[in-house]
Amino acid sequence: MSVDLMPNRYMPGEADLAEREAGLIARRDKVLGSSYRLQYRRPVHFVRGEGMWLYDPDGRAYLDFYNNVPSLGHCNPEVNAAMAEQAGRISANTRYLEPRLVDYAERLVATFPTELDRVVFTCTGSESNDLALRIARLVSGNDGVIVSSYAYHGTSAAAAMVSPNLGEAVKLSPSVRMVALPGPAGVAEAEAPAFFEAQVRAAIKDLDRRGIGVAAILIDSIFSSDGVWIDPPGFIAGAIAAVREAGGLFIADEVQPGFGRTGHHMWGFERHAVVPDLVTLGKPMGNGFPIGGVVGRHAAMDRFGATARYSNTFAGNTVGIATADAVLTILQRDRILDSVVAMGERLSQGLQRIAGASSGILAVRHAGLFFGIDIGHDGMSASQRRAMALDVVNAMRDDGVLISTTGANEDTLKVRPPLVCQAEHVDRFLVSLQAAVASCPA
Amino acid sequence: MSVDLMPNRYMPGEADLAEREAGLIARRDKVLGSSYRLQYRRPVHFVRGEGMWLYDPDGRAYLDFYNNVPSLGHCNPEVNAAMAEQAGRISANTRYLEPRLVDYAERLVATFPTELDRVVFTCTGSESNDLALRIARLVSGNDGVIVSSYAYHGTSAAAAMVSPNLGEAVKLSPSVRMVALPGPAGVAEAEAPAFFEAQVRAAIKDLDRRGIGVAAILIDSIFSSDGVWIDPPGFIAGAIAAVREAGGLFIADEVQPGFGRTGHHMWGFERHAVVPDLVTLGKPMGNGFPIGGVVGRHAAMDRFGATARYSNTFAGNTVGIATADAVLTILQRDRILDSVVAMGERLSQGLQRIAGASSGILAVRHAGLFFGIDIGHDGMSASQRRAMALDVVNAMRDDGVLISTTGANEDTLKVRPPLVCQAEHVDRFLVSLQAAVASCPA
Repeated sequence: MSVDLMPNRYMPGEADLAEREAGLIARRDKVLGSSYRLQYRRPVHFVRGEGMWLYDPDGRAYLDFYNNVPSLGHCNPEVNAAMAEQAGRISANTRYLEPRLVDYAERLVATFPTELDRVVFTCTGSESNDLALRIARLVSGNDGVIVSSYAYHGTSAAAAMVSPNLGEAVKLSPSVRMVALPGPAGVAEAEAPAFFEAQVRAAIKDLDRRGIGVAAILIDSIFSSDGVWIDPPGFIAGAIAAVREAGGLFIADEVQPGFGRTGHHMWGFERHAVVPDLVTLGKPMGNGFPIGGVVGRHAAMDRFGATARYSNTFAGNTVGIATADAVLTILQRDRILDSVVAMGERLSQGLQRIAGASSGILAVRHAGLFFGIDIGHDGMSASQRRAMALDVVNAMRDDGVLISTTGANEDTLKVRPPLVCQAEHVDRFLVSLQAAVASCPA
Repeated sequence: MSVDLMPNRYMPGEADLAEREAGLIARRDKVLGSSYRLQYRRPVHFVRGEGMWLYDPDGRAYLDFYNNVPSLGHCNPEVNAAMAEQAGRISANTRYLEPRLVDYAERLVATFPTELDRVVFTCTGSESNDLALRIARLVSGNDGVIVSSYAYHGTSAAAAMVSPNLGEAVKLSPSVRMVALPGPAGVAEAEAPAFFEAQVRAAIKDLDRRGIGVAAILIDSIFSSDGVWIDPPGFIAGAIAAVREAGGLFIADEVQPGFGRTGHHMWGFERHAVVPDLVTLGKPMGNGFPIGGVVGRHAAMDRFGATARYSNTFAGNTVGIATADAVLTILQRDRILDSVVAMGERLSQGLQRIAGASSGILAVRHAGLFFGIDIGHDGMSASQRRAMALDVVNAMRDDGVLISTTGANEDTLKVRPPLVCQAEHVDRFLVSLQAAVASCPA
């Protein structure tokens, strides 16, 4: 039986809604149709945001521990001022000379290892992964792509075709191969590197046997949609080397782990001490403004650029650049990464405190402020654990705290607060989680 | 011999540049690399924009008759105020209830024929075309796509594979078929509908013969990258009917002609009096803010949405929605389309006045404020006409007026000023064009 691909959602008829929300949902369904889903059994309705908080029309505050796009907080005034100021001056495209584009590109590339020396801008993480796949295929001359079992890399046709997470209605590419991760497979940490490398070597062999060849391994360093699997650091290194031996590239999808989410590093791949060929950026880059990019080694980037070109009307426009520049300035000036490490540690210790026997918390994994928390009790079936995780998420929503689920069985809580969260927010989250888990029958 | 894919561009060493520009270009090349091209033999350098004008660092003004993104003028203060106000209130995503998203979706869909009753938002025109192709392929069960000979539909992998305009370095899909347009083929207007239908029927037959089948015909109603071919109105109708008979959909790419560019209608397809199955939106929708969308019939949209879903992190966020809402408000309240008709007519009449014998102008085609102006003298070869068009574009740039070239031979001037241009701007453009053409040897 396949798992519901988005268990944490509103199902018509399952909740009693107020007239205000019921009416808005009816209008929404009529004009937006079935592509759009709402989170939670009882959808949330927001009209104002500020820092760590979202507010409903009655003024009730919800603590946001889920949204990794506004990483500097909802409606960050400094970021918004930079956007508005630039919008009043000029929004030039990249076919005209404009100094801010170059200034920011240099500042951004300087945060990467020196081998990664070129950047091309996009508007979304999906566009970034789509472009990185185009580059890898052109440069390698191969078509095959290796991803993790439950990977999600975006919503363009090419990105969706290498995203098994999207489920059976979205056809996979004949050239994609999924590889099992050591963590979900129950492999001990000491065996993890060899296990993962063996999976990837088998995929390469199969791609070669069919004349497809490997263009790239495309992974995010914290395997977020597989349920947040991060340890041991460096376990991906042998697999990457195998891909390179076979002529393929390593694309690090940093749309989720990038820009300081993992705390000790600006980029998630640094935790594994492997330098990628291409790095894809998105979500928090503009704190909500649509901007992304591909950073890469000049050999690959220039070979693509010299023949295929890349022109994206909105990407690299000066308003997006000014917004992203403000985000990078704040990340560095305010030492946000230090705070991510400290708050991640506080949250981790708090979870350890409440995760005793019969707590309903089976495991906690995290890097910085990206947490995966496995929910359930010993002896529960997979579907019981999934149901319990969904109950916890919805109980916390009713308590005014926002999170959701992830993983192949959707029984892992996905927790990724804005990076500006402070001790009071962490403590509030822990109280809510403990109560929600305790309220679920064992 | 293949035509240079972007003849109007800076080639290192071909122009003497001031130190300021040369230094910026050197830094730009180092960090952005070869994917990025600069327009004009001597690149333009802008630091401020206002209405119809862009300004270089010395304060010199350039009249913008090229950029169709800021259709309400550069740095439109009313649009920017709406963006800034919303950014300070909330930027919610579409998985939370938020009234502005629904309000704008309803207003947008109300500008379409009643059959087109659903909208899904994206961030760029490329994402819109990519999504429309996904929908058409899922709904039809076929893979084939029919486009015009020199079509451009975007920069994602799937959109680029159906964009012959990108040239030989970008591999075409085995499932794409290009069809000749009656205008460039020299077919008389009376024969145009039958000619085009015959081309499309042959493409369908070939796709069927190979078991590929036709998923969609994807065209923009003014065939902008083929050189602006617009007449006679309705010439596409028979071809569309043939595609539908074969189980395919009609996707109207309105990224360029949409939002009033053609003057008499909000949407370019209305000029041909054929209602599409899917319509793709982009460029001017947010006057520069990255927002696009797919509007379509509920049968196709809901079939896709119910199984495949579509989730795009930034798309439909409240800041983009508020910005697009301000654009639509201004378009309607200020009766911009009436002005587009009047200014298009003024520009057309001015061009007819100066396009006498030996003027260097061979033909003028336009709908509203999208013009294609064929450059050359009788007896010139294709390469001579192309060289002359490039000379005209660069002479006008030196005179402070911005346009570029289009068409399979790149000998057609592409002219698409912001929709807010007034008589004084049209007259200034005409003076510059006449002088530039006269300065080129016959």
